[in-house]
Amino acid sequence: MSKIYNELYEKISPGSGNVDKSHMLVNVATFPDSLLHALGAYSRVPKLLEKIPRDIKGIVISGMGGSFIGGLFLQDVLYDTSNLPIFLVRDPILPQFVDSSYLLIAVSYSGNTEETLRVFGEALQRKIPIISVTSGGLLQKYSEKNSVPVVSLPQGFQPRAAFPYMAVALLSITETITGDVGLLKQLSECAENMKATRDEALMKTIEDAKDFFSNIEKGLTPLIYSYRPYISVGYRFKTQLNENAKIHAFYLDLPEANHNEIMGWRQEASDKFFATIIRGSQEQYYMTTRIEFLIKHLEANNIPTINFLPEPRYSGKKICELLDLVFRLDLISVATALKLKTDPTPVDTITKLKKYLEKHIDVEKELFPQERP
Amino acid sequence: MSKIYNELYEKISPGSGNVDKSHMLVNVATFPDSLLHALGAYSRVPKLLEKIPRDIKGIVISGMGGSFIGGLFLQDVLYDTSNLPIFLVRDPILPQFVDSSYLLIAVSYSGNTEETLRVFGEALQRKIPIISVTSGGLLQKYSEKNSVPVVSLPQGFQPRAAFPYMAVALLSITETITGDVGLLKQLSECAENMKATRDEALMKTIEDAKDFFSNIEKGLTPLIYSYRPYISVGYRFKTQLNENAKIHAFYLDLPEANHNEIMGWRQEASDKFFATIIRGSQEQYYMTTRIEFLIKHLEANNIPTINFLPEPRYSGKKICELLDLVFRLDLISVATALKLKTDPTPVDTITKLKKYLEKHIDVEKELFPQERP
Repeated sequence: MSKIYNELYEKISPGSGNVDKSHMLVNVATFPDSLLHALGAYSRVPKLLEKIPRDIKGIVISGMGGSFIGGLFLQDVLYDTSNLPIFLVRDPILPQFVDSSYLLIAVSYSGNTEETLRVFGEALQRKIPIISVTSGGLLQKYSEKNSVPVVSLPQGFQPRAAFPYMAVALLSITETITGDVGLLKQLSECAENMKATRDEALMKTIEDAKDFFSNIEKGLTPLIYSYRPYISVGYRFKTQLNENAKIHAFYLDLPEANHNEIMGWRQEASDKFFATIIRGSQEQYYMTTRIEFLIKHLEANNIPTINFLPEPRYSGKKICELLDLVFRLDLISVATALKLKTDPTPVDTITKLKKYLEKHIDVEKELFPQERP
Repeated sequence: MSKIYNELYEKISPGSGNVDKSHMLVNVATFPDSLLHALGAYSRVPKLLEKIPRDIKGIVISGMGGSFIGGLFLQDVLYDTSNLPIFLVRDPILPQFVDSSYLLIAVSYSGNTEETLRVFGEALQRKIPIISVTSGGLLQKYSEKNSVPVVSLPQGFQPRAAFPYMAVALLSITETITGDVGLLKQLSECAENMKATRDEALMKTIEDAKDFFSNIEKGLTPLIYSYRPYISVGYRFKTQLNENAKIHAFYLDLPEANHNEIMGWRQEASDKFFATIIRGSQEQYYMTTRIEFLIKHLEANNIPTINFLPEPRYSGKKICELLDLVFRLDLISVATALKLKTDPTPVDTITKLKKYLEKHIDVEKELFPQERP
């Protein structure tokens, strides 16, 4: 293992290399490389989608957990620039309004996520154009049987660790469908930049997060806030802390949280919770005013507050800021696990749940009764 | 004050009538009456909307906090039945894709919510058809100046307490636009039924929630779960606990929470958090299987778990189940406040925030520069 990883493990917590048995740290540390690899792999997406209609009313993206966040990232990126509506469905039921004038993208890393398969099956019935993004499973099998194009994800990852591939896959699909190019080029430049400065960024991220770690080590639970276009970053950080560190962590978007959750921030909350605010160069002045108030209120009630910002050199480049934040917060979530002497990779409860569901629900028989031999 | 309220206060906590200085308990207890009143008041909505186009691509609803939940309720109600997409915007920025082929409904109880006014101002620029739902303020003023129809909310409520009016207003608008009638009639029948059985339901709700209260009194923080079509009910309960009881409470939808948040449910969480699951007759068998697993997992880790279900007599009537749950969980949130000796009505921090924003941001000058004398 290369020198930088040993240094990182020692910096996080001496001996923590032995805790990280499946090397999740290496996975998150090679985020820029994964982006570049994905850019190469998905250059053939336009060819793959030749038969997909372009004159659609909107894109509906079905995905759960780690496979939901790719869609949220795309929504953040396109929110204030694209004429194409993006709807996210993290549910087993496809909304009634989705008909053949929409495009469905079904995202499931394993290809066996029941919720996504149900939406996929319903979309086949409604004759909706579909693109699948998966590494295999039933989604791959029934996509091939139904001539649905499959954008392949590489095998051997934890679903949440395949985010860079999902992000690039979804951007490639969107650029192909809309003809609005430019984002992948920008992403490619950021990824090169992130790769060139990677080792330094890794060490600095751990150094800068020491107050975050200290609040975690005191047993406080993080409440995470961000706003458009950083919503995907905030929600991902929550889920990465859940899955890597196996701790509770909660997310709510601003300014919505100022209309309700802010009432829970009283003196009495200071021995249980701390606040984490994710910000960036896209912050409007009226958002700054709101966050100023929130921070003063938290201070007045002795609530520890952590701010995370992207590297200043990515200022004004939305997609770079998002990726830089995901890269560094993923690392922080893994380091949080290691500080707590927890192996970040296994998610025992989710694995048990999957087995329980397999035992009780025969998805293939229910959804594709005629097609199985 | 009528006998039932005194009995309720005594049942919740002796002397708690003195804590509830602005009678929030009476407000939530008269929920069925408010629904019936709103049904009468909004019978003239069709006339009001004569000039609004019917051939739209979808409805976009802008609203924050208490004014967001009306839209979420509508989305729950229409999710699996309506051909019209409903998009919710709880953000100051209107997504780029929204153009004059959509209808915007701007919901702000006070009419001075900056986020909603920004979306409203942008929609005027883009020449998008608009309907406003408000009790006054700048939204009323600039709606009238721009010939935007206003569906009026009654004055003198806390914004969150105007939910029954917002729900009926949004349903009336939707029935008028789509021509799909029937939901208001069903709502009217439920409201009559709820009113007839009200006093009994109030006492029973407090009785049935005693385990919920006992977890709160132990200082545990509730994590609330529900699923389509009960998402609005779960999110509202979280926000009502925030605003009425001034405590932290968190919400995540199922099955999404099973993909990440479930990892935080370990033995160590049992002295800080408890789980609250909201369920109903719309539960699919595959959701039941997931919730069975979740409950077993929580039990195995000594996490207290509370289930809330609608009255069995509303089984199969989605809209009645939603309203019955909101009615009873609103009451529980007020009772939670009173158990904690907290006056449910004032939301000091939010009031302070509004003053701070008024001092720093001149919304009217920025958004309507030419129109002000």
